[in-house]
Amino acid sequence: MTTPRTIHELQTPALLVDHGLLRENLQTMSNARPGTQLRPHVKAHKCTELARLQHAAGHQAFTCATIREVEGMAAAGLGTDLLLANEVLDMHRLGAVVATGARVTVAVDSPETIKAAVEGGVREVVIDVNVGLPRCGCAVTDAAGLADAARAKGLEVRGVMGYEGHLMLLPDPDDRRKQTEECMARLLTAHAEVGGDIISAGGTGTYAVNTWANEIQAGSYLLMDTAYRAIPDLPFQQALSLVTTVISRTPAANGIPGWAVVDAGLKSLGMDHGNPTIPGGTVWFCSDEQVTWQPDDIAAAQIGERIRVLPAHVDPTIALHARMWLVDGDDVIGELPVDLRGW
Amino acid sequence: MTTPRTIHELQTPALLVDHGLLRENLQTMSNARPGTQLRPHVKAHKCTELARLQHAAGHQAFTCATIREVEGMAAAGLGTDLLLANEVLDMHRLGAVVATGARVTVAVDSPETIKAAVEGGVREVVIDVNVGLPRCGCAVTDAAGLADAARAKGLEVRGVMGYEGHLMLLPDPDDRRKQTEECMARLLTAHAEVGGDIISAGGTGTYAVNTWANEIQAGSYLLMDTAYRAIPDLPFQQALSLVTTVISRTPAANGIPGWAVVDAGLKSLGMDHGNPTIPGGTVWFCSDEQVTWQPDDIAAAQIGERIRVLPAHVDPTIALHARMWLVDGDDVIGELPVDLRGW
Repeated sequence: MTTPRTIHELQTPALLVDHGLLRENLQTMSNARPGTQLRPHVKAHKCTELARLQHAAGHQAFTCATIREVEGMAAAGLGTDLLLANEVLDMHRLGAVVATGARVTVAVDSPETIKAAVEGGVREVVIDVNVGLPRCGCAVTDAAGLADAARAKGLEVRGVMGYEGHLMLLPDPDDRRKQTEECMARLLTAHAEVGGDIISAGGTGTYAVNTWANEIQAGSYLLMDTAYRAIPDLPFQQALSLVTTVISRTPAANGIPGWAVVDAGLKSLGMDHGNPTIPGGTVWFCSDEQVTWQPDDIAAAQIGERIRVLPAHVDPTIALHARMWLVDGDDVIGELPVDLRGW
Repeated sequence: MTTPRTIHELQTPALLVDHGLLRENLQTMSNARPGTQLRPHVKAHKCTELARLQHAAGHQAFTCATIREVEGMAAAGLGTDLLLANEVLDMHRLGAVVATGARVTVAVDSPETIKAAVEGGVREVVIDVNVGLPRCGCAVTDAAGLADAARAKGLEVRGVMGYEGHLMLLPDPDDRRKQTEECMARLLTAHAEVGGDIISAGGTGTYAVNTWANEIQAGSYLLMDTAYRAIPDLPFQQALSLVTTVISRTPAANGIPGWAVVDAGLKSLGMDHGNPTIPGGTVWFCSDEQVTWQPDDIAAAQIGERIRVLPAHVDPTIALHARMWLVDGDDVIGELPVDLRGW
């Protein structure tokens, strides 16, 4: 494939990353959370090229959600300090990454996951603590016992993590801070018993209000989506869009307004946060490879025209694509392979 | 990667296709809609190995939703009669497929798409008619004019298509049949003006009640999902599941019931039809790489155990995976690459 020069040469649908907005988001976060105060979560973009930019901005430690993300980051030379912030029961592939010289730390929340770390050849763990989101993580009162058990088996316990994920999209920042404080009180209680240097928590929604964790696991801030953009106090811009083509248009008739169809849909957009947004129009519904929408001005939606669609949720949207394109306006200035997909 | 022998050797999450149920679904549909009465839609599975089974069951003509699907089917030797049932504005890649000797027919619904077919080197089209779903498709009254315009430019007009997609999940079969009849009356009116051999419509939900189309574009019937399984009169079994591992478990406490977490989520499950189903439990919510659920018997959800999750929507779920595994019980008997992803 010849490298396209403009978005008009791209096979649609295609993910675009606005270079200027990406740089702004990167800088805004690095100013607020410099160096190790941010442990960027690569699950949001699954792209080692973007991780390299975060590394160059001073963040050398990363968060991963899957074994594949850990492997890919290490293979890309970004394995200085990788935290797999999820429980895994077969860690042999992670042990193989450790054997290459990368630093891999894994979340554990049970005797079984501690056993898996030992058997898989992983040497460092954090104790994952349930701070209020009903998902992984042990009870606060179990953290010390798990840390003791891990150390007794020869593992290095680097500290604690606890994700207040249920607070990320709370619209009121004061409410978000107050509830984050309650969650982090649990994490600090656990940390006092567990010890270690790491108190890892947070995300894009709480990066500013979570002043208790010493590292924030934010990922979405770099590219953003319409769900996070709806939170007024977040300073990050929507750098990610999906360029599409108008493939069909139906004029108004019999009291039904006119609509247009673009060639995006359920195969190119994560739908768990609902429909995407099209500026200058209203999305009606998504099919596998079509979005039906009502342009404010139907005359402006000519068949063949390129339309930018804004995804509602960055992470599952990117997971549907093999690559993104770095753009400056309509100019394509680089390719961003989504090279950390799969498990 | 060594080929795994059982599902216990698979890296989870992993899509499983039950061989026996797949065969039953294939046979049930082939009995009801033999040969060219079915034009299987490959968008549901995006897998040439599964298309090969459909071909062997007597269906030599296929439906595609993307250029990539057309290219991949032709390259796999399944290009006897491929219908791209969607509008495309740049058909040069399709013209290249035609030049290899494959038969490619494309849906058109506008002067622009007719022009694109001519310029791209595609020689055969069907007129896409809006039969009630607000998406692509021309007005019934415009069909004859478009057919004339296409023929004037040297294109072969093979007939009409019109998708009654909004009726697929109507629970009452009588209501579904009645509304399908209304939609197909529109399509037959258009066909009377357009001519040609093809009257293409329908899907898994209407394959039995749509007795007006002469070919049905069903795809989901082969693997199925919980949305279609909720329609009581459909005879197809859920052959697709996602095998996962229990990675964390929290006992009941303070009046909150116990829950477990498996390693599936928004990156492995299409979410537009809502949460997946876990037999023997209730799904609470999905995160990127976790599903939090309440097992009916928490003692049965041991950490490390393999749990099968049933996707709510087959098409966007498969699009998140590079491969599926053909299984007989817990035995893995084959790999099914999802080789038609992307655009």
